[in-house]
Amino acid sequence: MILRVKDTTVATGGPLIGIVNLLDAEKLDLHPMDRIKVVKGKQEETIVVDIAATELIVPEGWIGLNREVTEILKVKTGDKVGIVLARKPLSIDYIKKKLDGHVLIKKEFEQIVWDIVHNKLSEAEITYFVAACYTNNLTDAETVMLTKAMVSQGDKLKLDKYPIMDKHCIGGVAGNRTTMIIVPIVGAAGLTIPKTSSRSITSPAGTADTMEVLANVKLSLQRMTEVVKRVGCCIVWGGSLNLAPADDKIIKVERPLSIDAESQLIASIISKKLSVCSTHILLDIPCGKGAKIKHLKSAQILKHHFEELAKKLGIKVRVVITDGSQPVGNGIGPALEARDVLWILKNDERGPLDLKEKSLSLAGQLLEMGGKARRYKGYQMAKQILESGRAYEKMKEIIHAQGERIKEPDQIPISKFHFTIKSKVKGKVTSINNEAVTKVARVAGAPQSMSAGLYLHKHVGDHVARRDKLVTVYAKCDEKLKYAKDLCKEIELMTIS
Amino acid sequence: MILRVKDTTVATGGPLIGIVNLLDAEKLDLHPMDRIKVVKGKQEETIVVDIAATELIVPEGWIGLNREVTEILKVKTGDKVGIVLARKPLSIDYIKKKLDGHVLIKKEFEQIVWDIVHNKLSEAEITYFVAACYTNNLTDAETVMLTKAMVSQGDKLKLDKYPIMDKHCIGGVAGNRTTMIIVPIVGAAGLTIPKTSSRSITSPAGTADTMEVLANVKLSLQRMTEVVKRVGCCIVWGGSLNLAPADDKIIKVERPLSIDAESQLIASIISKKLSVCSTHILLDIPCGKGAKIKHLKSAQILKHHFEELAKKLGIKVRVVITDGSQPVGNGIGPALEARDVLWILKNDERGPLDLKEKSLSLAGQLLEMGGKARRYKGYQMAKQILESGRAYEKMKEIIHAQGERIKEPDQIPISKFHFTIKSKVKGKVTSINNEAVTKVARVAGAPQSMSAGLYLHKHVGDHVARRDKLVTVYAKCDEKLKYAKDLCKEIELMTIS
Repeated sequence: MILRVKDTTVATGGPLIGIVNLLDAEKLDLHPMDRIKVVKGKQEETIVVDIAATELIVPEGWIGLNREVTEILKVKTGDKVGIVLARKPLSIDYIKKKLDGHVLIKKEFEQIVWDIVHNKLSEAEITYFVAACYTNNLTDAETVMLTKAMVSQGDKLKLDKYPIMDKHCIGGVAGNRTTMIIVPIVGAAGLTIPKTSSRSITSPAGTADTMEVLANVKLSLQRMTEVVKRVGCCIVWGGSLNLAPADDKIIKVERPLSIDAESQLIASIISKKLSVCSTHILLDIPCGKGAKIKHLKSAQILKHHFEELAKKLGIKVRVVITDGSQPVGNGIGPALEARDVLWILKNDERGPLDLKEKSLSLAGQLLEMGGKARRYKGYQMAKQILESGRAYEKMKEIIHAQGERIKEPDQIPISKFHFTIKSKVKGKVTSINNEAVTKVARVAGAPQSMSAGLYLHKHVGDHVARRDKLVTVYAKCDEKLKYAKDLCKEIELMTIS
Repeated sequence: MILRVKDTTVATGGPLIGIVNLLDAEKLDLHPMDRIKVVKGKQEETIVVDIAATELIVPEGWIGLNREVTEILKVKTGDKVGIVLARKPLSIDYIKKKLDGHVLIKKEFEQIVWDIVHNKLSEAEITYFVAACYTNNLTDAETVMLTKAMVSQGDKLKLDKYPIMDKHCIGGVAGNRTTMIIVPIVGAAGLTIPKTSSRSITSPAGTADTMEVLANVKLSLQRMTEVVKRVGCCIVWGGSLNLAPADDKIIKVERPLSIDAESQLIASIISKKLSVCSTHILLDIPCGKGAKIKHLKSAQILKHHFEELAKKLGIKVRVVITDGSQPVGNGIGPALEARDVLWILKNDERGPLDLKEKSLSLAGQLLEMGGKARRYKGYQMAKQILESGRAYEKMKEIIHAQGERIKEPDQIPISKFHFTIKSKVKGKVTSINNEAVTKVARVAGAPQSMSAGLYLHKHVGDHVARRDKLVTVYAKCDEKLKYAKDLCKEIELMTIS
């Protein structure tokens, strides 16, 4: 059948879709989500069918193609294309198999991941895969196969080095910018650590957002390689690299229900690490109210599964369960966090002690794993590197290599729209509400506005006098400041008793 | 935030969707599948957000709205609308709960069904619901709640009668047009039977397609009510009525993986019957190779669940498991099946005996259930009604009331493009391949072309001489005849040995 192209000008960012009129669909006995092959000269592409019931959308004799398809086939509105029936991707059968509770084999995972990466599956089909992995769970062997398949269907950082260090934090705790202190320490010790970080999705800042205050983080894989070869380390945004791209599409369908199948979470984290060829990974699981992992039991199960998987993949993993009950550091939001980090690296007394201690402890573990320090001696070595100023020197090298913006903490612009909450009582801080802190910082404008966020003057356990400063909120503009103020009347950031 | 409307001219037939530019999304901290309320004057509607990464699709300051949304809000390209954040539908939490393996309560099913009917859920979200019902299954009590929720969110046929008879066949067997013989028999006996039927999705004809050869089947609920009040019965297409509309949207996301959760299947069938207020339902489960239900064990489990559910809903159900190993009747395809039906109703000797016997047996059961015949006397009564000509008279009344097309079997046009397959050997028919029969009939043009299909000259168990006619294929046109011929060389319709 020959149809004329109508460019819908819509890009789904996902499945390749063609919309045909009901009358043409009947001629070919097509149904929604069937597959057809669209042919234009020597170009051809198999796409998912949707059906238009009225002339208005797609008239008889025409086929509506989304942007992804018109770009692949290099066609425009009015062009003629050939249509032939195609069979559904093989992975549909494998997804059904998993949904029925069976165990999948290597080539089945590879096919599913390939089809996801190449936009061959509709959103509903990917959703069935995620739902199946969630309710029927994957065995450790299956998680290994899924992880490897995700890595193989993406780009890889190639470095001729051993060991290659890495770290990851499961997240959910505001502040907690340990990466930006650990990487320069570990790098200064001579270890290779090509760190990729994410941007914030629901938090006030991701490490990539905070690092972006100081340096360019959008590097190509080639430039990242050059930086790591020269400096030994980097802190870049993982999203601009094509590492394990299936993962991003899986995360997209997980969001509506906030589903996080444990096996998917593990495969997601490890696949990103394997894509940069990491051999030694330190995993930080903050645990507590407000963190992603709320109970020690769940943290321990997750730790166990990570360790099992690492063994099967032949990589070294250390998992530490840390306190996730309150924010780490004083600043929350890109600029305020970046300032904390530089103060610590410069041994300025304004640097928050909790963030410094946590970073030293984690960096120490990495120094031990990488063979630079003997067991139980890592912390001391990390402290010595930090306090000698070598870590700050390394950070300046990183900033310079990636594309410098700022390297002095007191040059970082913080918003002038601010207000401070003071204590009405005398007492002791008994808790800080992680979720409330996140919400206020985001309403104030973080992370889209780098200079917005909040500053915690007190931490859990601190003594408080009447009229002591508790929190200062920095907003993007006057309007956002008002919203943040209103919000602070409704929710309690700190409990004092 | 105020945005200008861009009418995407795309109708999804499902969720209400608005596409905003990434830059606007960041301002409101919006993510794909978040909800926003779009306000235009006094009209407002909550819709699902998708995000465009480039200017090309939706520029900053604009919002792309699909056809469903522009129609509800009565807006056109260039209009200004207000955007405010809205929370996700409650049903998202309930779907998550089901996915986690918990039992849902009445109001949770009601909310889910309401949101599905009102296009409040994205395809991925409905898919999670179906996947959850599939892998975690529903209890009988849950199936009852889901069924009732589906009925309450749709239109209902209101008749002041008791009993109201109904029948349903699980399907998968070609031919098998018992409804068009049973309804006139049961109607002639004075029982009320307001039958709604479906069109073919993957078969050569649905009952609605075959009935459409003889009469109009697209009736409004009001006209259907008038017909049933006057004639006592009808045979109409259920798709033009708004009965349990959630079901159609659920079936749409089930198709890609051919998922048929048993609880969904039961809820789907029973909800359509309760929407026409049926009190006595006869359920036919054809069982055998090529039918939807392949094994006797599965048929028995399904029978048991139907009976349990009926008890809980206070309706009378009889379930019969019939032979589904071969097609029923001789004609396959709308016109050929309609001719078989009228031959039987007119007691013409050309009427296929297997279809007649099966119909009499099922009609007899309904006569017993409805109190017209004593136990074991139904078949005799049905036979007497059919052979006396009263069933044919009733059928003529139905055809006349719905909008007459044809009432004489020999006036039905059958395609002139045909070829006949003859036996190359002497022997006995040992099997007929249901799936192959369906495929050949559809390639020949059925059901879009009413006059296409095939005619079986022999059934399983019949003796065959060399050069005896086995099957005649009728195609829409010469080209389709050629395709059908080619297909018949590849697949075997009948096995003779």
